[in-house]
Amino acid sequence: MSKEVNKFAHPFDKTRLEALLNRRFFYAPAFEIYGGVAGLYDYGPPGSSLQANIIAEWRKHFIIEDHMLELDTTIMTPASVFETSGHVARFADWMVKDTKTGDVLRADHLVKNVLEARLAGDREVRGLAAQPQKEDEKKKKKKVKNLAVQLADEKVKEYDTILAQLDNYSGPELGELCRKHGIRNPDTDNEVGEPQQFNLMFASSIGPTGQHPGYLRPETAQGHFLNFSRLLEFNNGRIPFASAQIGRSFRNEISPRAGLLRVREFTMGEIEHYVDPADKRHERFHEVRHIVLSLLDRHVQIQGSTELTRMTIGEAVDKGLVANETLGYFLARINLFLVNIGINPKRLRFRQHMANEMAHYATDCWDAEIENVSGWTECVGCADRAAYDLSVHSARTGHPLVVRQALKEPIITEKEVPEFNKKVLGKTLGRDAGLVQKIVWEMDEAQLLEFKGELAQGSAKLSAEGREITLTPELLSIERKTFKQSIREFTPNVIEPSFGFGRILYTLLEHSFWCREQDVERGVLSLPPVVAPTKVLIVPLSAKEEFEPLVQEVSTKLRKAGIFSRVDDSNTSIGKRYARNDELGTPFGVTLDFACIQNQTMTLRERDTTDQLIGPIDDVISVVTALVQGSMNWAEACQRLAVYDGVQAVD
Amino acid sequence: MSKEVNKFAHPFDKTRLEALLNRRFFYAPAFEIYGGVAGLYDYGPPGSSLQANIIAEWRKHFIIEDHMLELDTTIMTPASVFETSGHVARFADWMVKDTKTGDVLRADHLVKNVLEARLAGDREVRGLAAQPQKEDEKKKKKKVKNLAVQLADEKVKEYDTILAQLDNYSGPELGELCRKHGIRNPDTDNEVGEPQQFNLMFASSIGPTGQHPGYLRPETAQGHFLNFSRLLEFNNGRIPFASAQIGRSFRNEISPRAGLLRVREFTMGEIEHYVDPADKRHERFHEVRHIVLSLLDRHVQIQGSTELTRMTIGEAVDKGLVANETLGYFLARINLFLVNIGINPKRLRFRQHMANEMAHYATDCWDAEIENVSGWTECVGCADRAAYDLSVHSARTGHPLVVRQALKEPIITEKEVPEFNKKVLGKTLGRDAGLVQKIVWEMDEAQLLEFKGELAQGSAKLSAEGREITLTPELLSIERKTFKQSIREFTPNVIEPSFGFGRILYTLLEHSFWCREQDVERGVLSLPPVVAPTKVLIVPLSAKEEFEPLVQEVSTKLRKAGIFSRVDDSNTSIGKRYARNDELGTPFGVTLDFACIQNQTMTLRERDTTDQLIGPIDDVISVVTALVQGSMNWAEACQRLAVYDGVQAVD
Repeated sequence: MSKEVNKFAHPFDKTRLEALLNRRFFYAPAFEIYGGVAGLYDYGPPGSSLQANIIAEWRKHFIIEDHMLELDTTIMTPASVFETSGHVARFADWMVKDTKTGDVLRADHLVKNVLEARLAGDREVRGLAAQPQKEDEKKKKKKVKNLAVQLADEKVKEYDTILAQLDNYSGPELGELCRKHGIRNPDTDNEVGEPQQFNLMFASSIGPTGQHPGYLRPETAQGHFLNFSRLLEFNNGRIPFASAQIGRSFRNEISPRAGLLRVREFTMGEIEHYVDPADKRHERFHEVRHIVLSLLDRHVQIQGSTELTRMTIGEAVDKGLVANETLGYFLARINLFLVNIGINPKRLRFRQHMANEMAHYATDCWDAEIENVSGWTECVGCADRAAYDLSVHSARTGHPLVVRQALKEPIITEKEVPEFNKKVLGKTLGRDAGLVQKIVWEMDEAQLLEFKGELAQGSAKLSAEGREITLTPELLSIERKTFKQSIREFTPNVIEPSFGFGRILYTLLEHSFWCREQDVERGVLSLPPVVAPTKVLIVPLSAKEEFEPLVQEVSTKLRKAGIFSRVDDSNTSIGKRYARNDELGTPFGVTLDFACIQNQTMTLRERDTTDQLIGPIDDVISVVTALVQGSMNWAEACQRLAVYDGVQAVD
Repeated sequence: MSKEVNKFAHPFDKTRLEALLNRRFFYAPAFEIYGGVAGLYDYGPPGSSLQANIIAEWRKHFIIEDHMLELDTTIMTPASVFETSGHVARFADWMVKDTKTGDVLRADHLVKNVLEARLAGDREVRGLAAQPQKEDEKKKKKKVKNLAVQLADEKVKEYDTILAQLDNYSGPELGELCRKHGIRNPDTDNEVGEPQQFNLMFASSIGPTGQHPGYLRPETAQGHFLNFSRLLEFNNGRIPFASAQIGRSFRNEISPRAGLLRVREFTMGEIEHYVDPADKRHERFHEVRHIVLSLLDRHVQIQGSTELTRMTIGEAVDKGLVANETLGYFLARINLFLVNIGINPKRLRFRQHMANEMAHYATDCWDAEIENVSGWTECVGCADRAAYDLSVHSARTGHPLVVRQALKEPIITEKEVPEFNKKVLGKTLGRDAGLVQKIVWEMDEAQLLEFKGELAQGSAKLSAEGREITLTPELLSIERKTFKQSIREFTPNVIEPSFGFGRILYTLLEHSFWCREQDVERGVLSLPPVVAPTKVLIVPLSAKEEFEPLVQEVSTKLRKAGIFSRVDDSNTSIGKRYARNDELGTPFGVTLDFACIQNQTMTLRERDTTDQLIGPIDDVISVVTALVQGSMNWAEACQRLAVYDGVQAVD
């Protein structure tokens, strides 16, 4: 019934997409009229709505569905917190300076850009897949020039291997690569210096005296961990449970150049799921067992390959590829969420971090990476932070961040316990008393038993700092005692899914964008209704007063049905207004003209096909409500309403 | 039918409220286990929900209702923006230092605290309203001690006058007050130094070189203004319209000590309504005309009085008390919003700023102030920023931030225009040519006409830098020309309602809190359903498996009805669970026991009265849905369902 639409008639053109996003104010460089600041963006009305809808869906999919405890914690953080968490010492990237101009470059990005350019030049000479450079790409100053120079075969292989494990190099190794392969600043052709660490946190100070250094948080996670005791109490002392937070974080990136994919300020959603380290099963894992993911584990990468394995998450956990059910549950749920909001599942993979690549706090990490025109980009990280954070904060502050569980069966243990006769001990051994006690207390069970045996013979000898000291039963007795433990105390492990909403939003826009077959100038964003900024566009023939009551009626009915609509009564043709709203991703439109007023009917237009249907106003509203809520698809809608041929009788 | 409840049986006790909020983790000092940082708070699960619900209601009430354009802009801002906006020079408070310890105090707060303490001491001696200090208040170190010393009558009057216009004093005046009235640091009894300005913005720097100074925004407003051209274009070039933004802002307060009422990091909602300076009418003003507000204008305050005037906003605008309809529209809408979410209308007033009190950018300002235990607190500001911001940014960047309107009727004007014969002019006058042109161009219409007359006589004389220069018609002609203006270009004025959600949230908690008459230990938060963190509590008799299907059924049905519920199956009595949820402000509860399973009935409990009703499960769900949505009140619910006497037949 509905028209076939070819969304691939024109190859994807990033320049066109960016022009559209700029023209329709999805987002724009912040402080643009001041010349802008790299890595900072403002979201306009459609971008704000799209982001708000993605976040609302996230809240429903994760927080509500799994009864997570939501938090809203502070961005400005005293330095001591990030000293403890390790961020002051280790949350850094490696940068190199141009030896002549002093320009600063991120070391790994430099290596990547230069080697990729050389490989592209090589392919060009070999006559392989050398895409012609586009006009507007040539214009970009910062683009690394492809020199059409053929490389030795083993060189090509070496470069490929370096690129496949690029994230695994340390700073000194990156410096070594620059020297070995003659990597220079492509903008100036100058040599670069040794890589140096640059901390990515923005620094400030709190209070009027300037004595309290602070940082803007680079993640929301610490705000969860510091409140762990309160959260546990709120959850009646039970684990597992998760806390969740949506909020702004800041990273002072060295030289952000990739639009929304690498920014200095961003909205993230973070979940901290607290689990018993001895039991990382998940009670809802059976619900997601069957879900098939594209996996790229660390063993494959370390061999210089990026080949994906398609596998159910159930199988991946059973095989030990994914460490446990809880981690597996979240990978599957992340996959569901991303596909649900419109990410192309064929361009979504889960990549495991290599050992050197992991953040300092993580013991394992899988990234959900989404393919886009600049490659595969991490959009969600899913890290096993183990007990790292809770342990270090607890040790630093002396505040226990632990779970105490009553044991069903108390654990009865027996062990040898040394007991000193302190009075006599001091008199007899003098300054050695302390040393002797320390040595005995550090003995294990076997050593204590042996020592007990010797004491039973009358005396036992100890070697302390090279001297030999003799102990007698008068000084020390060792006895077997029974202990009953009825409480188990432990530091939970933390599994952390962490979402960058800006990256998800941008890749979603890329996946949604296409141009109409008959006219490449007519761009469309095929955003699913669940995230589209506006669900229904109301298009009166004109802004004239006679349409006002009908516009009011329709928009009120839609609002009551919970559907967000917008009226476009601007002074252009209906066709132009629809074209504008195709660019805004509005999935449905209803047109109000004189025939509607007379017949109480309304036409309904679908964005992708541009099909139009017609029916009584209330029928159209109930159909569009079902379409937006996802309980009906367009083919079904075509069964419910008549096709509109563009002509309506008006007396 | 429903019980009478006395919410005022016990006087309001802030200590009890704070203990409740802390115990239930509405919010807590941020970084508490590190000793905390003044002015920074984390919101726990109920606080986050309450805030999210207030914000959702705000979005509906303002953004959706008036079709505002939502934005999400950047917090980290380059210094140049705040240099232009005036914040670098003028966004400051006056602080004084303790001359011995170096402790920093905010000057106006110091004066206020010391004078209020003296007045309280005076009242104590006179035997007036001297409340006995509570144990726990005595414990607070920072509390200014009331010295029971009687003051001269004129002194009392003088202090009252100072306090009524405290916000109107400049820094030097505050210094003068300290000297004149012997105001010292109450913590140490040391003298304080001269007031100095302290800028309230947090400073940082952007990028790896440290060369780009930045500030954290102290308001979201600049992010709106810098995007004005894009917003106007998005709105098809039409005004009036409004942009709106919800986001975090930062102010490095000097010594925050007032809980959520004065914090260093906060979530705000700001609306910038752009309006034609020549026409500040509002097309929906008639909808709010009748709304009665409590007003405190600047004339009343300057006389040392704080007496309120009750008046409809229509009358206030007609009388010129409130400057225009747009400002009036927002004051009324703010009033509606606050009352709707549960603020006590008797404790809400609108106070106009005095001249010296206004922010540097404002030409008029009314604050919505909410009364709480520490006095009247500004929770919403509604400022007329006129064309200030758009003009200064436009001047600094050269980017026009203006509206261009096609005039229906072109404006035809005639005026005298001087025209120089430049070739001859230079030859004849040499270096004076420029000077002469400047003088002539600066002439007004009358001067030009007179000069034209003289030229017609053959020559005209000019006085330039003390010399006399003669001009002839050969050098200069002055002619009457006709101008046709078909576009009107102007900088719009901005009316800005600006909401501090933390302050609204805290005052709402105070207004909602009371203790049950029969037991002061049983606190209740009577939050309206629209903002309550949880709408319905589901209380199964126990966590046993047999209740699981019914719990699932009820919570699924509620979720489908759009009602957020929570299950409390913790291991305590039903009474204790209800008491806990009274503290969390949960308005309704349903109990599931063995009788429910057998009879398919359910009881419904109302939080404030503790009344219980009973009926078939689906009836109870439809009643509670109507109650939560506000389409039914409790008295009506009592008509729909039977009273539950606490006994149900079980076979």
